[in-house]
Amino acid sequence: MPAKLVRIQRSAAPGAAGPTMLAIAGDSAAGKTTLTRGLVAALGQAESTSMCTDDYHRYDRAERRSVPFTPLHPDCNYIHIMEQHLQLLATGQSILKPVYDHGSGTLTRPELVEPTSCVIIEGLLPLHTKLARACFDVTVYLAPPEDVRAGWKTARDTAKRGYTAEQVATELQRREPEAQAYIRPQQRDADIVISFGPIEGRADPPGTPLSATVLLRPTIRHPNLAAILAEAPTRAMHLKLMRDTDGSPVDALHIHGYAPAEESNIVAKAIWDALGVPEPMPASLGLLENGVCNEPVRLVQLILLYHLLRTPT
Amino acid sequence: MPAKLVRIQRSAAPGAAGPTMLAIAGDSAAGKTTLTRGLVAALGQAESTSMCTDDYHRYDRAERRSVPFTPLHPDCNYIHIMEQHLQLLATGQSILKPVYDHGSGTLTRPELVEPTSCVIIEGLLPLHTKLARACFDVTVYLAPPEDVRAGWKTARDTAKRGYTAEQVATELQRREPEAQAYIRPQQRDADIVISFGPIEGRADPPGTPLSATVLLRPTIRHPNLAAILAEAPTRAMHLKLMRDTDGSPVDALHIHGYAPAEESNIVAKAIWDALGVPEPMPASLGLLENGVCNEPVRLVQLILLYHLLRTPT
Repeated sequence: MPAKLVRIQRSAAPGAAGPTMLAIAGDSAAGKTTLTRGLVAALGQAESTSMCTDDYHRYDRAERRSVPFTPLHPDCNYIHIMEQHLQLLATGQSILKPVYDHGSGTLTRPELVEPTSCVIIEGLLPLHTKLARACFDVTVYLAPPEDVRAGWKTARDTAKRGYTAEQVATELQRREPEAQAYIRPQQRDADIVISFGPIEGRADPPGTPLSATVLLRPTIRHPNLAAILAEAPTRAMHLKLMRDTDGSPVDALHIHGYAPAEESNIVAKAIWDALGVPEPMPASLGLLENGVCNEPVRLVQLILLYHLLRTPT
Repeated sequence: MPAKLVRIQRSAAPGAAGPTMLAIAGDSAAGKTTLTRGLVAALGQAESTSMCTDDYHRYDRAERRSVPFTPLHPDCNYIHIMEQHLQLLATGQSILKPVYDHGSGTLTRPELVEPTSCVIIEGLLPLHTKLARACFDVTVYLAPPEDVRAGWKTARDTAKRGYTAEQVATELQRREPEAQAYIRPQQRDADIVISFGPIEGRADPPGTPLSATVLLRPTIRHPNLAAILAEAPTRAMHLKLMRDTDGSPVDALHIHGYAPAEESNIVAKAIWDALGVPEPMPASLGLLENGVCNEPVRLVQLILLYHLLRTPT
């Protein structure tokens, strides 16, 4: 089915126009679940549904030993079923989603997913196909530097998924060609790309929160940060008009990890105020698993809440 | 979605018109799997896909102990997901079907079902809703007398599903109100109803194959049995023009279990010839699990093959 047709079907869905659909794509341990968790906490269960497309694995862990690719390869997943389920959710219909148990590495009993007003889809390959992309209103790609991600993956997979650090290192190496071929190209199709990394020319002490560059592509209408920052200038971040890798105009928001939270808070509050929601800004935003608040994560979550809660005009 | 819309969608499905969809409904141990097995064997795997809607159970066996209804109740099943999957199959799309393991009573890893040119759907409730019914080209209801079905169910569930005969008897009693409320009403919506039973006024010795009445409702166009039987009269069966329970005209085909197979074979051959298929009539038709051939089952299978293989005009 042509991708455009899905968009038409969505706008013509009987009754409601269907939920607002958000994709959070990125490689393993790129921070997808952290980003999603804060949004779900802020929206509440009545407003948000989240699910992971990695449950569409075609093979379990034992079977994967005899296939010539890793879970990152589209052929290792029921991509056409993922597309079908994304279309169903986008048109307001429930699905019976497969479940992959990361602990045991087995495929188990599927679960019912009923779309609420906001549906958050995270995973390795949610933006792999044109039809899948057509199901989303907002798309995010998480792009931490590879060494940072390797550290996150080692910490998680040894603590929660029963692997040793050596096994994780070997696995990362084995996955690299497919990450390059299938995961990272999705960055091209995201409305928002978040890249963590140190700031050149600075020698921040260990433990300084990571800085980040958030690309805000004009493929969707973001909150007017240029106006907000003009009114409340801050050392915590700056917005730079630049050219994207393909030459298109793009806004790059640089957020400085070393800056005090009070300063980025001014911008955060301005985005929240733009929403016109009576409640105070949710405290769950920006929280990492260790309980520390990360400003780039918080700002991205605020921009996403802006897209999820604002009534389209 | 209105049921008529599904029919329109089906005829407008991109590329092909979608598979021919056959439903075989009936209570537990009514003979659905036997009827399906012979058809699949006759059609071959390349031509036919079969699946059971009882896999859409919402609860596993342990969970059902604390719900106030049996697996026969629509609320005990994901009926709306069953409807969704039937629509997808009817429009030529694959599904990831849930799987209920009758041996262990658990819900397990789902499996991919890809529609071929004929899709056979059997189960307890495939005709329960209007939307589900709209997905089928041909619908069958199996209605053996309750005492016959109780015998079949006891034999199967003690041999294959780990129950005792007492447990089966208790379960049948417990299910009766829901069988009456939800299963048997589907008989009304079937194009073909097959009812086994002894013939009144005869004292056939034990072991005589069951006779059957096959209602052929003019809701679809059946092979012209009136013409076939006029040309080759036989004691093995007769066709009677009568009124259905709702007063509509219907053909009732009475097949006599005591009659020699050679005679019903004339009719069987005439139906097969009407198909114009070069191959000889498949030997798998009519075979019960014990290897004995049952003439009513064989004739129903032939009529179904006629509907499945004939190009609609």
